[in-house]
Amino acid sequence: MFFASDNWAGAHEAIAQRLLSASTGFAAAYGNSDLDKKVQARFSEVFERDVAVFFVSTGTAANSLSLASVQRPGGITFCHSEAHVIEDECGAPEFFSNASRLVAVSGEFGKIDPAQLSAKIAGYPEDAVHHGRASAVTITQATEIGTVYSLPEIGEISSIARKRNLPLHMDGARFANALVALGATPAEMTWKRGVDILSFGGTKNGCWCAEAIVFFNPDEAKEMPFIRKRAAQLFSKSRFIAAQFDAYFEEELWLGLARHSNSMADHLRAGIGASNSARLAWPTASNEVFAVITKSAAKTAESRGAKFYEWPIPVSMPELVSDNETLIRLVTSFATTEADVDGFLKCLAA
Amino acid sequence: MFFASDNWAGAHEAIAQRLLSASTGFAAAYGNSDLDKKVQARFSEVFERDVAVFFVSTGTAANSLSLASVQRPGGITFCHSEAHVIEDECGAPEFFSNASRLVAVSGEFGKIDPAQLSAKIAGYPEDAVHHGRASAVTITQATEIGTVYSLPEIGEISSIARKRNLPLHMDGARFANALVALGATPAEMTWKRGVDILSFGGTKNGCWCAEAIVFFNPDEAKEMPFIRKRAAQLFSKSRFIAAQFDAYFEEELWLGLARHSNSMADHLRAGIGASNSARLAWPTASNEVFAVITKSAAKTAESRGAKFYEWPIPVSMPELVSDNETLIRLVTSFATTEADVDGFLKCLAA
Amino acid sequence: MFFASDNWAGAHEAIAQRLLSASTGFAAAYGNSDLDKKVQARFSEVFERDVAVFFVSTGTAANSLSLASVQRPGGITFCHSEAHVIEDECGAPEFFSNASRLVAVSGEFGKIDPAQLSAKIAGYPEDAVHHGRASAVTITQATEIGTVYSLPEIGEISSIARKRNLPLHMDGARFANALVALGATPAEMTWKRGVDILSFGGTKNGCWCAEAIVFFNPDEAKEMPFIRKRAAQLFSKSRFIAAQFDAYFEEELWLGLARHSNSMADHLRAGIGASNSARLAWPTASNEVFAVITKSAAKTAESRGAKFYEWPIPVSMPELVSDNETLIRLVTSFATTEADVDGFLKCLAA
Amino acid sequence: MFFASDNWAGAHEAIAQRLLSASTGFAAAYGNSDLDKKVQARFSEVFERDVAVFFVSTGTAANSLSLASVQRPGGITFCHSEAHVIEDECGAPEFFSNASRLVAVSGEFGKIDPAQLSAKIAGYPEDAVHHGRASAVTITQATEIGTVYSLPEIGEISSIARKRNLPLHMDGARFANALVALGATPAEMTWKRGVDILSFGGTKNGCWCAEAIVFFNPDEAKEMPFIRKRAAQLFSKSRFIAAQFDAYFEEELWLGLARHSNSMADHLRAGIGASNSARLAWPTASNEVFAVITKSAAKTAESRGAKFYEWPIPVSMPELVSDNETLIRLVTSFATTEADVDGFLKCLAA
Repeated sequence: MFFASDNWAGAHEAIAQRLLSASTGFAAAYGNSDLDKKVQARFSEVFERDVAVFFVSTGTAANSLSLASVQRPGGITFCHSEAHVIEDECGAPEFFSNASRLVAVSGEFGKIDPAQLSAKIAGYPEDAVHHGRASAVTITQATEIGTVYSLPEIGEISSIARKRNLPLHMDGARFANALVALGATPAEMTWKRGVDILSFGGTKNGCWCAEAIVFFNPDEAKEMPFIRKRAAQLFSKSRFIAAQFDAYFEEELWLGLARHSNSMADHLRAGIGASNSARLAWPTASNEVFAVITKSAAKTAESRGAKFYEWPIPVSMPELVSDNETLIRLVTSFATTEADVDGFLKCLAA
Repeated sequence: MFFASDNWAGAHEAIAQRLLSASTGFAAAYGNSDLDKKVQARFSEVFERDVAVFFVSTGTAANSLSLASVQRPGGITFCHSEAHVIEDECGAPEFFSNASRLVAVSGEFGKIDPAQLSAKIAGYPEDAVHHGRASAVTITQATEIGTVYSLPEIGEISSIARKRNLPLHMDGARFANALVALGATPAEMTWKRGVDILSFGGTKNGCWCAEAIVFFNPDEAKEMPFIRKRAAQLFSKSRFIAAQFDAYFEEELWLGLARHSNSMADHLRAGIGASNSARLAWPTASNEVFAVITKSAAKTAESRGAKFYEWPIPVSMPELVSDNETLIRLVTSFATTEADVDGFLKCLAA
Repeated sequence: MFFASDNWAGAHEAIAQRLLSASTGFAAAYGNSDLDKKVQARFSEVFERDVAVFFVSTGTAANSLSLASVQRPGGITFCHSEAHVIEDECGAPEFFSNASRLVAVSGEFGKIDPAQLSAKIAGYPEDAVHHGRASAVTITQATEIGTVYSLPEIGEISSIARKRNLPLHMDGARFANALVALGATPAEMTWKRGVDILSFGGTKNGCWCAEAIVFFNPDEAKEMPFIRKRAAQLFSKSRFIAAQFDAYFEEELWLGLARHSNSMADHLRAGIGASNSARLAWPTASNEVFAVITKSAAKTAESRGAKFYEWPIPVSMPELVSDNETLIRLVTSFATTEADVDGFLKCLAA
Repeated sequence: MFFASDNWAGAHEAIAQRLLSASTGFAAAYGNSDLDKKVQARFSEVFERDVAVFFVSTGTAANSLSLASVQRPGGITFCHSEAHVIEDECGAPEFFSNASRLVAVSGEFGKIDPAQLSAKIAGYPEDAVHHGRASAVTITQATEIGTVYSLPEIGEISSIARKRNLPLHMDGARFANALVALGATPAEMTWKRGVDILSFGGTKNGCWCAEAIVFFNPDEAKEMPFIRKRAAQLFSKSRFIAAQFDAYFEEELWLGLARHSNSMADHLRAGIGASNSARLAWPTASNEVFAVITKSAAKTAESRGAKFYEWPIPVSMPELVSDNETLIRLVTSFATTEADVDGFLKCLAA
């Protein structure tokens, strides 16, 4: 009953086996091996477009270097107020962007509100040297709280960004989960809707450590080899990342893993929706479920070995829980079993 | 015949298998798993002292964050003029150290000359605000050009550093190779000789990706969790690093792998020393061999599939090669075979 | 009728004359002249305590270097949501602090709300590496919108900061105006109430360019000479700043200038309070007045040569102005005359 | 007998008087006053070309922000090994350039040797991600040791830079002294010889504090308003800089002041050249004179009140002084009198 995070799982067997089989033999270092090149080409197929791909070690690195690549002096990146970049990366996005600033935009259910975004951007007129200047927008798909931007919602954000020539970055730490939730193609969910740079995460969906930065316009990636190297993110034995992605994309393994974890979340959602001692805090569509449960149910679950995090009450929902309740986050992964879910639901019923 | 670099090898089978077996099951993320803790404790045993250990993704990260942890405004780190930090890390050490500066110190055979170091440090008196100020010293063991500091040599450097209260960092990307070359213990080659912080590299010696920063005084590591996280170097599935080190240290695998690669280098050294068409450029003691060979021998070797890099002529040895010769670097690894070495030596003889 | 800002005035005659008389003769550079030392000692007298003083070129520099001196990796400085550091310094505080982050705290009338501050700080528990960590608090006295923290209010903020060992910085760009508004001594308004570091501004109160960073505990200033030099803020002919402060402090000129500008603001406040076509937007106590006036009155005033800025409607007061009204800021200075004020009030009456 | 530095002088009377007369009246802040605009236009006249001008507070700021404006990730700026940027700015150039690196190029008499420059640049091939990449070249005119690049020498450096598309910056802290030494026009010594960005110093030549960054191609200055503001270098009462430059340029005052200080240096050079107890260390052409004098003569001079610095023996001239001698630097300024020079020469003769 491990629902603490999708990064508590190990690696999917197919990925682990591919690493094993890739471990023999010699190959050029620093991303120049045949396997590296094969996988880079595979990304272009997946996205139906020539893309530039850069492997990095963490999702924080992917986000931070993406934003660093579009940084400007005095620059400001707009993100949701609960975004991972502003809440959970210890200042890395600013650190790698030569101290560019993140400005939080509010919006329901973890998604940037377009009107709020327009208003915030308007607060930074083109030549207002004192305030700093609008430089980029970043959205998270799926969001930190389990929701998913629809394709038109992405398009709306990108058209606002476009008006001020702001590049649009997508934090796709849970890209696959959002993708299968929407039933969209990778192209549809990104560049066809105006996304310029993507943090493509594999770690949370069955890899050990496989994160990539994807530029949909490779010309805009010219600085990235230096940005990445200077950021200490250029792996020598880069093929160990490539091997993971190689297995990840094979026969659509990645989509299957995401479908599995989403379906385990569906199962949780259904069970909680039908429960007397718990309720869904807000609707989610990916592999994260937020539930309000009684404190006693939480204790019972923990005593039976369930792992999950209590979550801070969102500022926008001050009356979400009553005194004897608590808000919890449940995250499913490729490794979650139906038995885990049923076991947890039984705790609630106890 | 792959002698381009030790990072062209994959992962040793025992390490790859351990990764496979670690891939199942759930475990706490961000370095808090049982396996992470077991391996952290193992480091303290290896070094015969309570140490603080931080896994990172690359040797550049290990060096850069080590130096960042001792950075001061206007700070200067002294390194050898051919050190990896100043030659091959694209400015990462300065980047992570809030623009602290590296100052090169010369010295024969890749090793800092103690008298030169003293003289350089003296150029930065304590309160000379214009020049900047001495902040740290870093040495590389084994060095970039295959040599190894003796234990007294390390002690001499550290005593110079100590006089000005400068912490001493050791870049141990090839730590194991140096260790077995000296026949020393890890403790003897580090803190017993005054080393404060170590970049402990496993990648070049049979791991996929296993680098660690080791603080011999854990009190001095208090900022490091934040420095590492902000540097985007905190792995979520950190146990995948731990698993590699777990196998690495088991039954002294790491020392065995280093002994193997050093012995392959010995074999190369012997063959080149005895050759008519090649000679050793300078004496080396670890898994790197530098040879002056005829350009035609180089071509022959390449045409037969040998991989190696031509190396720039050191400034201090302008007459090292004649017109029809070239300087090459040959690096052996855990995966180098006797047949590889013999094959290469045959190319020279051809 | 120049009410755009107190930095539209030139320099007070006594200060300008002192510069003239200081221009002859030779003196040690970089802050080591006799005049520099005399003025540094004068600061200790003014603050009734041994202080360490560092001249810099702008208020932004004073704030940024103050905060840089207490920066920590992943660090967070708490400021009011309308503070100059977060609104009007183009990211300089983060830039000089190695990308430390500013977190906005709300509060009525430009002042940090203590409860909000406590709550925000609590969101960054000591060892929560992902969020970053609380590192400093900064307040502005007088505030950006003309209000003034009372002495007990400063004490309350500092006691909250103290609980987490956060140094407290005060942005005193309009220090003198706040001081005379409170009738307090410099000591009472700073270190006696828990302020650790002060940006002491002279520019807005009659100097050309005279800003100083004051450390109330000189031991905490040890890094500052290097921080300042590296920040390109060490003047060679530093005595030209010293000369300004020398005149500034002489016979309490600075307090007289602040009293004058505050009294001109009083005059404005009285006139606006009694006006039919204008009203005070909120109560202010220093040399800034915020008024809601009809758009037609604003046009009239501008056409008659009045200079002032329209001001954005505060988020917390969405209904402050009606459709035919606008919010304006009026700033008085040492150079404002009664005739200027009367002239402006006549515009309103027109 | 003040020869310690030209920044030990105060301000020339014409400049000090202009500041006094500019101190009355109101004017737009942050560089938007009429006087600011007048002086900016004056720069374009002086340089016979439309230029973009940015006032800053120190020469270190001018150099650092100039280089920051052309920084690139992993970037390297080539400078002379004795340049002010690498020796005397406490790391500010790297700090403001997001940790870009300075690489020292040797050359006789303080001037970059063109062949050495070419060789150094060649060490950083275009796509060599590990080494970092060539990004800019900076020269100092007059140099740190009193020599002056001839116009063809500047052209030669710029043509080397041009081959790799590296912008050329000139540190003109003593621009006027070099200019009058060459008898060239400002245009001839800069953009007509390929200089792209200039640090134009007025402080050492009779101003209190007047430094400017000049872009000869204003299109390349688009980021500079934000770079400067974020660097805390945008003066509010900017006209106090403008007023100094206004007087500085009037009736060629600046050239007259430089001619005076150079002629005082000529007088020193002649006297030392004819002396028995001293000799010129190397030929200089501007307002700096380097002399080898007996230690006893140095003591005598100091005891009689002469101020000067002993200078480190250049690495390239190890046998410059004998045991009983010392190397000293003598700097003249607009305020140096013939009596000062004669007085000093008498000390030598004593």
